[in-house]
Amino acid sequence: MEKIPCDLLIIHGLIVTLDDHGTVVDDGSIAVTLGRIVALGPSEEMKRRFAPAHVLDARQGVVLPGLVNAHTHAAMTLFRGLADDLPLMDWLHHHIFPAESRLTESWVYWGSLLACAEMILSGTTAFCDMYLFEHKVAQAAKEAGMRALVGEVLYDFPSPHYGPIENGLRFTEELIQHWRGDPLIRVAVEPHAPYTCSEELYRRCMNLAQKHDVPMVTHLSENASEVQQVMARYGRRPVAHLAALGVLNNRLIADHCVDLDERDMDLLAEHGVHMAHNPESNLKLASGFAPVPQLLRRGVCVALGTDGCASNNNLDLFGEMATCAKMHKAVASDPTTMNAATVLRMATRAGAEALGLKDTIGQIRPGFAADLIVVDFSAPHLTPVYDPVSHLVYAAKASDVLHTVIDGKVVMENRTLTTIDLERVLSQVRAIARLLQP
Amino acid sequence: MEKIPCDLLIIHGLIVTLDDHGTVVDDGSIAVTLGRIVALGPSEEMKRRFAPAHVLDARQGVVLPGLVNAHTHAAMTLFRGLADDLPLMDWLHHHIFPAESRLTESWVYWGSLLACAEMILSGTTAFCDMYLFEHKVAQAAKEAGMRALVGEVLYDFPSPHYGPIENGLRFTEELIQHWRGDPLIRVAVEPHAPYTCSEELYRRCMNLAQKHDVPMVTHLSENASEVQQVMARYGRRPVAHLAALGVLNNRLIADHCVDLDERDMDLLAEHGVHMAHNPESNLKLASGFAPVPQLLRRGVCVALGTDGCASNNNLDLFGEMATCAKMHKAVASDPTTMNAATVLRMATRAGAEALGLKDTIGQIRPGFAADLIVVDFSAPHLTPVYDPVSHLVYAAKASDVLHTVIDGKVVMENRTLTTIDLERVLSQVRAIARLLQP
Ligand SMILES: [Zn+2]
Ligand SMILES: [Zn+2]
Repeated sequence: MEKIPCDLLIIHGLIVTLDDHGTVVDDGSIAVTLGRIVALGPSEEMKRRFAPAHVLDARQGVVLPGLVNAHTHAAMTLFRGLADDLPLMDWLHHHIFPAESRLTESWVYWGSLLACAEMILSGTTAFCDMYLFEHKVAQAAKEAGMRALVGEVLYDFPSPHYGPIENGLRFTEELIQHWRGDPLIRVAVEPHAPYTCSEELYRRCMNLAQKHDVPMVTHLSENASEVQQVMARYGRRPVAHLAALGVLNNRLIADHCVDLDERDMDLLAEHGVHMAHNPESNLKLASGFAPVPQLLRRGVCVALGTDGCASNNNLDLFGEMATCAKMHKAVASDPTTMNAATVLRMATRAGAEALGLKDTIGQIRPGFAADLIVVDFSAPHLTPVYDPVSHLVYAAKASDVLHTVIDGKVVMENRTLTTIDLERVLSQVRAIARLLQP
Repeated sequence: MEKIPCDLLIIHGLIVTLDDHGTVVDDGSIAVTLGRIVALGPSEEMKRRFAPAHVLDARQGVVLPGLVNAHTHAAMTLFRGLADDLPLMDWLHHHIFPAESRLTESWVYWGSLLACAEMILSGTTAFCDMYLFEHKVAQAAKEAGMRALVGEVLYDFPSPHYGPIENGLRFTEELIQHWRGDPLIRVAVEPHAPYTCSEELYRRCMNLAQKHDVPMVTHLSENASEVQQVMARYGRRPVAHLAALGVLNNRLIADHCVDLDERDMDLLAEHGVHMAHNPESNLKLASGFAPVPQLLRRGVCVALGTDGCASNNNLDLFGEMATCAKMHKAVASDPTTMNAATVLRMATRAGAEALGLKDTIGQIRPGFAADLIVVDFSAPHLTPVYDPVSHLVYAAKASDVLHTVIDGKVVMENRTLTTIDLERVLSQVRAIARLLQP
């Protein structure tokens, strides 16, 4: 029998497909052609069937869908550890805002490339970004070979990038048009938050998102102080406020959603809003504990994000999964809540769904894009293995990711990045940091 | 000028000494002879002064005191991920206790060696252990070159190791005598917890500890259910119970201390009890949030531990530091609580003090034992660097530890273990796990 040519064959992995049946293939292989998964099955059979141009050995590790970072500000890698352990307003007004006022598009480009390097090294294959100079984030992601949903941050006051909001809306529309049809980069409309965006701005943003059929992203109900501000201004809580504006719908990704009452949770569920949960940022900024188990019970799609490096201070979704799975147990006084499978699903399938890509990524399935990672299970901290899903959430580390594949392209092989000139990126970022050093 | 011979010179590191003045030496070097730090200072000067037998290049990374794991059950690496996300009693009675009933001294030896490998790889140089067959934990630590405070777990019911409690007390006393004077291994008396040990047993344990001038270790007030049980049996809360028995003192390391009232906290402070805080285990078992900021304000020495791998599921103190620093901020609604310096101190100096070694380890200071780690700061997730202490707590990972030195001996160089035959340990543990596989 003639062998079928394929671009890539990933061999000898335990494949955790995350498909609807929870299929796991022991010693499995995955064939990839033109960026898509074409087949998966037992290694010996797959090796007989396919003639690959390139082979990745999973070395008895685990192959799973690439992780999806549903909320970050990639270029904030530039501010990693610049200021910590401060009161929120002091941190923002005396450290983060002054640093951001000096941003240039070149800084954002290098900071975003550093973020892509860190994400690829830690098994993240797609991310949703909100920041300034977002065309440079798109450029960095595209060069790195990462899948990204990007969007310029929009608010009422003038931006260090585009100036008045009219320019911001026009810039967003141009960005949408520029990247339309790109296999990796998509653009969202991104109003910052209910306390920085007028009712009018939210409505215009949702109109723009609907006109171009793209997602909308916003911070929402991150902490008690936001809720107080919005209550004082509009006489209703942030979620009810957005509901009243008619901008709660299936197109929306709402970041944080920490301070919610029962009615808020019902509204998010009723309108099919996607939520990006950022547990480590919520802890570090003392925002609180998002009621994720309650949202999941209501059927809300809850994805996982890291937020930016100024409030985390990394982009590591393995750490984020462990924190997420553990912290909600203590909050609920229930060790059975947020089990490993639930949390792994948040970091993969729910992320795909939130980003509007549920039929493209988030599962290992023929026809799906080949966004895959191989996690080496041979380290002492992953020995022995009883349950691979438990290990992925509770024991595996970013450094265990061996190979990363995005849209069929091997962007990391044996922990070496193939798309990013890492030394150049590190030295550029260090040079920028010398200018920011307090 | 004649150069001074020394055993080891660690060069070109940013030295975070953790001494009383918070001294940090930029591009510093440390000379070590006969297991002790003999000098530290600027690299160029140190290289002129010393003629080392061996050189470790810190590669512009950070040198700090080795981390101290103040509470673990090392051999429970054997049960890593065996059962997760279960109700506590189901987990204990249907998974952990049945597995432990099959333990042999050989299993404990291999599980402990695996733990030592994981700890050395993640920058931990000393640990406090409680388990069965503890002579094998001592043997494993000694062979691995790790510093350890070990102790056989004691309780009222028969032990799978020593049988009736009389044997347990005799075994403990023999262990103390066997290891007396050892530079690495010390022995503690370790009654399990107030709900498993009679008043009589606690008193006999403290007498034994005093007779031999060794520490005592016990679990204490880990969760609400323990408090209820002890209240029902003795009419007082666990801390007050131990106070009434006269066993609260400066010799005691109390593990967990999650469920405390104001009076409990006062008692721990008044009696100079050392506490081992295990945030990730407390979260995963849904025990709750130990009131660490309140204890620190009262002057209690709070060290950091991982607990065993059945409830964590790793022995990584870098992850534990990050969790500790972040989670208490959300609990307190205060982003300034538990700052990076405080948490780093818990994982080093406070650990040393809890283990009764405050004049031996926990600082980089001439005369102190050379328990040191070098953390490579060149990875993307540690770029840029504004504040090394922030990075050690919020961004560094176990995998960034480059070299580990214990008592002057290089036990890991460039991430290669020098004292442990890792492949042999991994294969032995995998063989044991096949017997335990559900
Ligand atoms: Zn954000
Ligand atoms: Zn314990």
